[in-house]
Amino acid sequence: MSAATRLRRLQQDAEIIVFEKGPYVSFANCGLPYYIGGEIVEREKLIVQSASALKKRFDIDVREFSEVIEIQPEKHEIIVNNNGKVYSESYDQLILSPGAKPLVPQIENLSDVDNVFTLRNIPDVDSIIAYIEKKQPKTAAVVGAGFIGLEMAENLEKRGIKVTIIERDTHLLPPLDTEMAAFVQEELENQGLPIITGHSVVRVAKDRVYLENDAEVSSDLTILSVGIQPETTLAKKAGVNLGLRGAIIVDEHYETSVKDIFAVGDAILVKNQISDEDTLISLASPANRQGRQVADIISGLPVTNKGSIGTAIVRTFNLTAASTGLSEKTVQKLGLDYKAVHITANDHAGYYPGSSSIVLKMIFNPENGEIYGAQAVGQKGVDKRIDILATAIKANLTIFDLPELEFTYAPPFGSAKDPVNMIGYAAMNIAMGISENIQWHELADELSNGRRLLDVRNPSEIKKGAFKNSINIPLDELREHLTELDKNQPLVVSCQSGLRSYNAERILKSAGFDVKNLDGAYGIYSKVTNELLENKI
Amino acid sequence: MSAATRLRRLQQDAEIIVFEKGPYVSFANCGLPYYIGGEIVEREKLIVQSASALKKRFDIDVREFSEVIEIQPEKHEIIVNNNGKVYSESYDQLILSPGAKPLVPQIENLSDVDNVFTLRNIPDVDSIIAYIEKKQPKTAAVVGAGFIGLEMAENLEKRGIKVTIIERDTHLLPPLDTEMAAFVQEELENQGLPIITGHSVVRVAKDRVYLENDAEVSSDLTILSVGIQPETTLAKKAGVNLGLRGAIIVDEHYETSVKDIFAVGDAILVKNQISDEDTLISLASPANRQGRQVADIISGLPVTNKGSIGTAIVRTFNLTAASTGLSEKTVQKLGLDYKAVHITANDHAGYYPGSSSIVLKMIFNPENGEIYGAQAVGQKGVDKRIDILATAIKANLTIFDLPELEFTYAPPFGSAKDPVNMIGYAAMNIAMGISENIQWHELADELSNGRRLLDVRNPSEIKKGAFKNSINIPLDELREHLTELDKNQPLVVSCQSGLRSYNAERILKSAGFDVKNLDGAYGIYSKVTNELLENKI
Repeated sequence: MSAATRLRRLQQDAEIIVFEKGPYVSFANCGLPYYIGGEIVEREKLIVQSASALKKRFDIDVREFSEVIEIQPEKHEIIVNNNGKVYSESYDQLILSPGAKPLVPQIENLSDVDNVFTLRNIPDVDSIIAYIEKKQPKTAAVVGAGFIGLEMAENLEKRGIKVTIIERDTHLLPPLDTEMAAFVQEELENQGLPIITGHSVVRVAKDRVYLENDAEVSSDLTILSVGIQPETTLAKKAGVNLGLRGAIIVDEHYETSVKDIFAVGDAILVKNQISDEDTLISLASPANRQGRQVADIISGLPVTNKGSIGTAIVRTFNLTAASTGLSEKTVQKLGLDYKAVHITANDHAGYYPGSSSIVLKMIFNPENGEIYGAQAVGQKGVDKRIDILATAIKANLTIFDLPELEFTYAPPFGSAKDPVNMIGYAAMNIAMGISENIQWHELADELSNGRRLLDVRNPSEIKKGAFKNSINIPLDELREHLTELDKNQPLVVSCQSGLRSYNAERILKSAGFDVKNLDGAYGIYSKVTNELLENKI
Repeated sequence: MSAATRLRRLQQDAEIIVFEKGPYVSFANCGLPYYIGGEIVEREKLIVQSASALKKRFDIDVREFSEVIEIQPEKHEIIVNNNGKVYSESYDQLILSPGAKPLVPQIENLSDVDNVFTLRNIPDVDSIIAYIEKKQPKTAAVVGAGFIGLEMAENLEKRGIKVTIIERDTHLLPPLDTEMAAFVQEELENQGLPIITGHSVVRVAKDRVYLENDAEVSSDLTILSVGIQPETTLAKKAGVNLGLRGAIIVDEHYETSVKDIFAVGDAILVKNQISDEDTLISLASPANRQGRQVADIISGLPVTNKGSIGTAIVRTFNLTAASTGLSEKTVQKLGLDYKAVHITANDHAGYYPGSSSIVLKMIFNPENGEIYGAQAVGQKGVDKRIDILATAIKANLTIFDLPELEFTYAPPFGSAKDPVNMIGYAAMNIAMGISENIQWHELADELSNGRRLLDVRNPSEIKKGAFKNSINIPLDELREHLTELDKNQPLVVSCQSGLRSYNAERILKSAGFDVKNLDGAYGIYSKVTNELLENKI
């Protein structure tokens, strides 16, 4: 619809026809889980535009229940099936935006049960709600803990159904890194949702699902949200070249391999602007832009598809998690030289009521300062910081530019040093050699290679959980106890968030110690693992 | 304190002394109005760091109640007055960060009354609160409706005092443009605060203030917040070169004209990064950065002061207003070729509960797309959009880049097309000649030059207020009524927000009409003025 309405504004005389297989040409698909949960109460809120309104305002001929079943590129014709009535229609230019459909994994008994659903459109939602109202399920399993899976889990739980989340990967929200996803897992567990990671569902039944390790999970209603795949059967049949995971290959003008056929949206391959690799990015924002751009291109405007970076967010109960660009995991896979840094900071000035913590992570190139990606978790202000960092990445800003950014500051909104400024400073310290950090997953190796952990928290904090075999000297007493430490003993310093330990690192470095800072410190480490820890409460 | 703590981290062996005239070396000055209003309840929340904590953690020698009364650059010494005890101290490098003090305008009787206050620090707040508690004022006048003035007005009103706001300029919040400030004025008036603009206070008395037009305003308590001026008496005495409004001139390494004397913060002149002009930007964020940077520079790190753009925000009751970069007014004054554009958009998806409107304005160069500045008003999400646009300006992104930005989108947080994307599209349409707009202040001229106003709202909207002598054809009926319009009659089209009228403009342009779109449409126009309007309710 972005393409169609933009086309109309640019070409008042064009004949524009939109074919839609289903009943709704324009609906709020990101709102579907919230309608199931009851936060969105009125079903009609999900319907953004009706065919008749689009006709009136934009003179667009919208044909619902009209599946395009064949393209005949040489004749410039398509074959349409409208409830059994099959006819052909001609085109000068054809824009494909078939989207993506939910992946359905290999699961036994799927066709024998009526309680397993996927979620793509309003008819899917209608089916799920009809099932819930009729069968009053007490338990549910959400299979696949990506963004949509977690939204479904929360919304089913809010409808009073006991939900178990099952994820094949080692952690929830695979687009995020392990330690960031751990915060989301903690929130879900605090809300009473059991989580099973590292296991797959292999069989379903009326009231349970079975995992590959023979475990059973009670489930009267099962949602499969394990991912999506481009809906490209039609394109393939028409001879359009497909690439990775069957997605449509387009050039920077959204032209497919077949003349006068363009493609946009979740069905196409795009360039990841950071890694330069071909990828699928199934998000509303790029899809909307592509729709508009293809209309511009068809109308002769000088526009190109520059690719995407991928920015996403999910609210799970009281916690929000978001990411932009590449994760640490992806950067590792690509073999890039990188450093990661975490900070913990208030969403707004701590002296003004209602502030809460944001944990912000950034992955960057320590040589040139390029920002590869960022992730954040927190109760408030997570969207703002990731949006700013997404803007910084798109603008090719480096870590050295982040402290220069000037944000709105009044007590209800931020701090004089915003978390984004602070993470820039932290990254600069690393890039300039002022600080040297290690990540939580590097600690075990560093310790077994002979480093000793120095914890600079206060004794009251140590009591709530500590690193085994660590030395404890509170930061404020470090200067006076410096002579008691062995300068030949390489150290890792830690505190709660990594800020005090950084100050300790500077004191120790200046005194001639070989010392590294545990990035994110005990706070991050203890979220992910209990290894090397004692007395954790 | 940013300079001192950063210096310590970089130089463990340096001797660092901080001299502070008053009792607190580190306090939350942006929180002061909220403490007066009672939102911040505990006074100690305002004190960020104590001298003893700074000694312990950073080994910094903080001397409070210690006014530096003279600098002797040739001897590298300063003279300090500590409660009457005068002594000298030597320095290798001296950093001046004296800040700025409230401007006190020429007002009669000021020295005869005890009920007029300015607000800079905790002692000021203590005086105001002591006065309120002792005298129980029923009315107050806030003189000067900048950011601080409005915060004070709200907080005094929240304490139960009837506040009148008096501003010499033609509108509230002079850093904003008239039509954007009009939203803030409406909110304040809705909250029951009388506002007087275009007048100055010339005389004060025990229970009232007098304006230059002889009008009186009841005021048991008067707050002067008409602006600030650099506190540079000491620097001047030391021979440091001063510039515009007495501010300290520094080079890009914060060096003053006197060897080994550096200066940072509200007392220095900075370069406006957009206009390249010398200016004073008295905001916490640049001041903090400058403090850290001067420590880096003194420690030999390759850092320079790149200047500032000025980003600010204020919450007034339920409305937030923010700005970054240059206003339309300033751009006009500078004689730059510019266009302005306004959009009205939801802070998050309209189909998800709790969304509210943001009015976003951008000023840009229509030739190369350079973004000069942006302003926004709304209940929620204003900080985020202005922060993103501040980042875009700092990164030299153009209007053509804004649609490319990929933001976090889930229903509680945003929309598939964020307001920032949308304003990018709107500006591109103007830059590319797809749309031609006029501003609210240009309408009267356009109409008297022979244009006719076509209002494409629905009759139900027209009833609530309309442009005099306008033609009304609802957008959805425009195509069918096109032949009834005279093609030789140049038109201005308007609707409520400017979106429908843009669609109408496209229809009319394509049909051969000479037509311009009233940017921001009736919604903006009717906020600022009643001229040319009828039936407004």
